[in-house]
Amino acid sequence: MRLFLLPPDFHGQNSLTLTGNDSNYIVNVLRLKEGCQITGRDRDGKTYLLTVEKIKKGSCTLSAEPLEEAVETTDALPDSRPEKTIILYQCLPKGRKMDEIIKRATEMGVRAIVPVKSKNCVAEISDSATKSSRYSALVREAVQQSGSLVPTEVCESIALEEIPGHFKSKSEQKLCGLFFHQNTLEENQKNLLSLLEDPENRDCAYAVVVGPEGGFEEGECRFLMENSFHPVLLKTNILRCETAALYAVAAIQTISESL
Amino acid sequence: MRLFLLPPDFHGQNSLTLTGNDSNYIVNVLRLKEGCQITGRDRDGKTYLLTVEKIKKGSCTLSAEPLEEAVETTDALPDSRPEKTIILYQCLPKGRKMDEIIKRATEMGVRAIVPVKSKNCVAEISDSATKSSRYSALVREAVQQSGSLVPTEVCESIALEEIPGHFKSKSEQKLCGLFFHQNTLEENQKNLLSLLEDPENRDCAYAVVVGPEGGFEEGECRFLMENSFHPVLLKTNILRCETAALYAVAAIQTISESL
Repeated sequence: MRLFLLPPDFHGQNSLTLTGNDSNYIVNVLRLKEGCQITGRDRDGKTYLLTVEKIKKGSCTLSAEPLEEAVETTDALPDSRPEKTIILYQCLPKGRKMDEIIKRATEMGVRAIVPVKSKNCVAEISDSATKSSRYSALVREAVQQSGSLVPTEVCESIALEEIPGHFKSKSEQKLCGLFFHQNTLEENQKNLLSLLEDPENRDCAYAVVVGPEGGFEEGECRFLMENSFHPVLLKTNILRCETAALYAVAAIQTISESL
Repeated sequence: MRLFLLPPDFHGQNSLTLTGNDSNYIVNVLRLKEGCQITGRDRDGKTYLLTVEKIKKGSCTLSAEPLEEAVETTDALPDSRPEKTIILYQCLPKGRKMDEIIKRATEMGVRAIVPVKSKNCVAEISDSATKSSRYSALVREAVQQSGSLVPTEVCESIALEEIPGHFKSKSEQKLCGLFFHQNTLEENQKNLLSLLEDPENRDCAYAVVVGPEGGFEEGECRFLMENSFHPVLLKTNILRCETAALYAVAAIQTISESL
């Protein structure tokens, strides 16, 4: 635990009282005593030095002092942080794989994860209320563990055809859309490195579209290309879709942060 | 299932009889009938067209015909394969995380996975016999699922100090060693992209050294640098060590295969 994720209703007050899971986490999981300090982050990405002032049965009160630079206050945090915005459009995989993808993408600092329904999806978009609260818990846990300063969110599910509009609405930056496919779709198709090195595609917010178990259908690829999404062929083995998401994010993040 | 991994004692015979788990896999899991065909791969990386000739109780007999190019025979395989040799030196993580790392690294086509004992490892190198057979099963499953043509192996555990010698013994190619660290260790430290773009480090076999939960100690970093391993700082969040291994492999593979 390197960072305590503050509740959504916290907006910079001097003090806050936690109950339920949050209090339990501070008192019983982290075993903080009165006087102990921990770094906290609110939902806008601001960080605070939190001091445990009072522990009662079932609740605890913390004081909160805004911090200028979270990175300076804890030695466990790395020297550098991801700066590029990455949005993951993940076609719904089977079973609990989406949970795994959400955890890892959050850990890596993906800004938003959007479940997508595409032709080869076997999983249904349903019970979204239950999922949404489960998803929030997964994000919360991963943020706290990784000390991520990116306020990752899991969005409502959308259809593949809605991706271009959704992406435009999510960022004011220049946009660069990418989708990952097992086969070459264009003549002289660029690899990921040359795509990202292209001045056109630098300093963008990146959308990463990753297929479900069966991949994308031809019409879906055509649709994405017509909407300026670049096909990317990774020179690797066939990856399980949960590995593919992580692989794609790692590749984009490493290259875009290095240029 | 895209590829059947042939038993270690198969070396290109015209026919082979499978028993036990292998036979069960063909007959009951894949439900192949007599006359059905499947692609197989031996431990040297050669591929074969396998035809089920005879199914008996508890065993089955296959004929094997060498294939020139496995990629041509199945449409489920991607257009391109990883060509660079990557060896993962993974400091032993806690619990079952090593299993997860082995599965994913195999899927990505890592050539060898070497468990390493370093100062901050909590896990012990022990019960290596049990582990080795469990590890082989994990590799086998991941190779079959991913259709990887790389004959991944899990090596015996070694100490961190043995890495440089081990790496030299594993490849006749030019060598490039990298280790991943959360902090900047050298002035003007290069990022992964500029490191791999350096002509010195192209067309190499790559060693990737990934730390355990607590990272590397200062002395260990110094030792690795003295032995020509380059420190790499990834511009991402703190990653769990099982995520870090895959992140590192994905990043190196994408960049080195794109240059």
